Amino acid sequence: MADSRSKALQFAKDNRARFLEELGQLVAIPSVSADSKHTPDVLRAADWLAAKLKKLGFENIQIMPTDGHPMVAGDWRGAGPKAKTMLIYGHYDVQPVDPVELWDTPPFETTKKGDLLFGRGTSDMKGQVIATLAAVEAALHAGDVPLNMKFMLEGEEETGSPTMGAFVKKNAKTFASDFALNPDAGMLSPEIPTITYGLRGLAYFEVHITGPKMDLHSGFFGGTVRNPANELARLIAGMHDENNRVTLPGFYDPVRELDDDERAQFKRLPQDDNFYMQQTGVKQLWGEEGFTALERVTGRPTLDVNGLLSGYTGEGPKTVLPGKAMAKISCRLVADQDPYEVEKQMKKYMEENASPAVTWEVKLISDSVASISERDSAEIQAMAKAQETVWGVKPIFRREGGTIPVVGHLQGVLKVESINVGYGLPEDHIHSPNERLHLPTWEKGIDSLIHFIYNLS
Amino acid sequence: MADSRSKALQFAKDNRARFLEELGQLVAIPSVSADSKHTPDVLRAADWLAAKLKKLGFENIQIMPTDGHPMVAGDWRGAGPKAKTMLIYGHYDVQPVDPVELWDTPPFETTKKGDLLFGRGTSDMKGQVIATLAAVEAALHAGDVPLNMKFMLEGEEETGSPTMGAFVKKNAKTFASDFALNPDAGMLSPEIPTITYGLRGLAYFEVHITGPKMDLHSGFFGGTVRNPANELARLIAGMHDENNRVTLPGFYDPVRELDDDERAQFKRLPQDDNFYMQQTGVKQLWGEEGFTALERVTGRPTLDVNGLLSGYTGEGPKTVLPGKAMAKISCRLVADQDPYEVEKQMKKYMEENASPAVTWEVKLISDSVASISERDSAEIQAMAKAQETVWGVKPIFRREGGTIPVVGHLQGVLKVESINVGYGLPEDHIHSPNERLHLPTWEKGIDSLIHFIYNLS
Repeated sequence: MADSRSKALQFAKDNRARFLEELGQLVAIPSVSADSKHTPDVLRAADWLAAKLKKLGFENIQIMPTDGHPMVAGDWRGAGPKAKTMLIYGHYDVQPVDPVELWDTPPFETTKKGDLLFGRGTSDMKGQVIATLAAVEAALHAGDVPLNMKFMLEGEEETGSPTMGAFVKKNAKTFASDFALNPDAGMLSPEIPTITYGLRGLAYFEVHITGPKMDLHSGFFGGTVRNPANELARLIAGMHDENNRVTLPGFYDPVRELDDDERAQFKRLPQDDNFYMQQTGVKQLWGEEGFTALERVTGRPTLDVNGLLSGYTGEGPKTVLPGKAMAKISCRLVADQDPYEVEKQMKKYMEENASPAVTWEVKLISDSVASISERDSAEIQAMAKAQETVWGVKPIFRREGGTIPVVGHLQGVLKVESINVGYGLPEDHIHSPNERLHLPTWEKGIDSLIHFIYNLS
Repeated sequence: MADSRSKALQFAKDNRARFLEELGQLVAIPSVSADSKHTPDVLRAADWLAAKLKKLGFENIQIMPTDGHPMVAGDWRGAGPKAKTMLIYGHYDVQPVDPVELWDTPPFETTKKGDLLFGRGTSDMKGQVIATLAAVEAALHAGDVPLNMKFMLEGEEETGSPTMGAFVKKNAKTFASDFALNPDAGMLSPEIPTITYGLRGLAYFEVHITGPKMDLHSGFFGGTVRNPANELARLIAGMHDENNRVTLPGFYDPVRELDDDERAQFKRLPQDDNFYMQQTGVKQLWGEEGFTALERVTGRPTLDVNGLLSGYTGEGPKTVLPGKAMAKISCRLVADQDPYEVEKQMKKYMEENASPAVTWEVKLISDSVASISERDSAEIQAMAKAQETVWGVKPIFRREGGTIPVVGHLQGVLKVESINVGYGLPEDHIHSPNERLHLPTWEKGIDSLIHFIYNLS
């Protein structure tokens, strides 16, 4: 087994140039999922990955239709029926490249400059997919792989994985597994290996307030009819109390509190309050009393207005008393909140607070459960040990404030915890021009994935 | 003098068919001010009126340029330098006729059906302009006219008189006068002669709230940055108290309270609370405690949101934490509120209440002073007597909730009070298909204007 591990590491070293070449081939396919004129390219990228899995010896390879772009699947059961099964997630679609004139190199071509490899998807996440395939190939080449593996490669992560929830539900059996590896989470810096063990969930609402049966003249009716825009504002205002806590009834009841160990780990992270002020340009931070900024964005739930629309919003004055008003309002959730419970809380809040002079409607239009992995599980410990072996320091355990929809679906539907890692860096310009990959970190990532696989023996 | 009055009334009676024919000519000119393809028609209507004034013996006739459509002006000084001067306002532009397929008769053609005359502008307000010209012609024909007269005929009332304020300021001398007659205000019913002695003013704001320097990802930053849309909602909510009174500091201080006589007059009017519920379709009215619906919309100031815009308002979920939020907010004002004072109050409110975690801007984008005429002035009494003579009942004195911009400008700039009358009815479908004029009421209107002129001797 020790021989296999060394052999795999050597294989990876010997084949780095080829892995890079493969990454170049994948980057050259402009699989922009948001742009329908690239739909054929998204399919080409799926084909490329299916062919690659076949070459690695995977079976049951499928390009599975979804309601959007297809899912590439395949499995390797060589470890036998008693071994655990790891589900490896990745996505092969990329963000659009506009404004393309701000790119210094062709976006759909990899260009190496020193330690950096430029190109759309090098970091998010074609580079991570290739790193994972490389580690798997090295291990399969060396032998003694201690676990079965399934791949689940998505084609529409960059459009918010709109059809993923339904897909996972429908294909739960195909992807049944013991745990998941998701290399879409990134590292804090090249020196700090990182394991993301928590992601926030989401309950996203549209709230509609209807007042008079049509837009009215504010002169003829102003002052005697409840204005739905004013009422919406009042309702939104009431959703926070004076300590900036969310007032939906029962909202905090199921929240898993940050423990002392977590709060101590968070203090090691570079994201202090200054960091958040610099990133956002605000003159003063804001949030729930009693928590640091980092704790608030990763370990605490929120309620934010994402959009407001009512009445006349063009140039100049129009004296309309609008007949209706709409807000998009979303809550970021943490373990163990349930988006459907939050939906009930939102409706209860409206029932208790909305003026009887208007009617209201609340629609839940997107939801995702928060995900959290036990930090002392065998798999997380295997990953931590692998990272320490490669980087020489213990990894940082962090939570992330965002949502990776698939992680929520795997946790919610398949009951599978995800190990979220990845070898992208905050300065990689993902979603922006001049996206890039830090190659030394990426190479360490491949090595750490190989160690991880063998640590699971 | 009594002879002249009778002679004038007889002249009006004898010439009714011609007045109607003239109204037909004016309606046939599609002077839709909102539609630039009708700009030549707007000019044709101005020419028609200038020619008519010339025929009546007016002098200094001008088609005065404005920053929009022109103003038709002319004066008659035959009563001598010691007599008072009456400024007669009217507008010769009309609303668009869409949806034109809902008209039962050609919109730019007068069609008589029984007592009703159909056509765009018959009621609002080409019919009223012709009625006024008819009364003036009759009096000039009969002689002994006791006052000088100036006409001010506007071409863009239906687009909100956007350039009227600047125009009146620039040409204050041309239109200097002792009082104004504005026949654009209408009657409550064919049996109830009506004098509108109060109109609400307006202070219309855009409020901009800026938070982070750009739109943020609500996952990465939600919970630690003050969301400008949430903050805007909180600020709007705070602009009313629990009794639905406006909280801008000092807002009510200058408000002229409704007196007992006014409140008694209002009780005679048919607009009870049921009327407002039927008109608006709401299940429950709303407003400042202690006032009826009619009192609130005519004699009390308000604050209404006219528009809200922030973040993402398209289909589906987008998890943006918006960088900015905007509201259009307007206050209807009553005597003796000053829109510029209300602007200061709005800014003071924002200073005192906006979170230091955001920046804000308040822009006053439209303003109009409330106007009110003394009900016991000689001119108002002359009009009341004229209406009682013709209809056999005392007129209703009412306030209106809307703003006629010119009335505010005349009051604010020329220091001239307006007598607001008119012979249109609520059921005339103004601004809608099948606009019409009730001819018996219109004829009484002409007679009452003749009495009004001679009552001023």
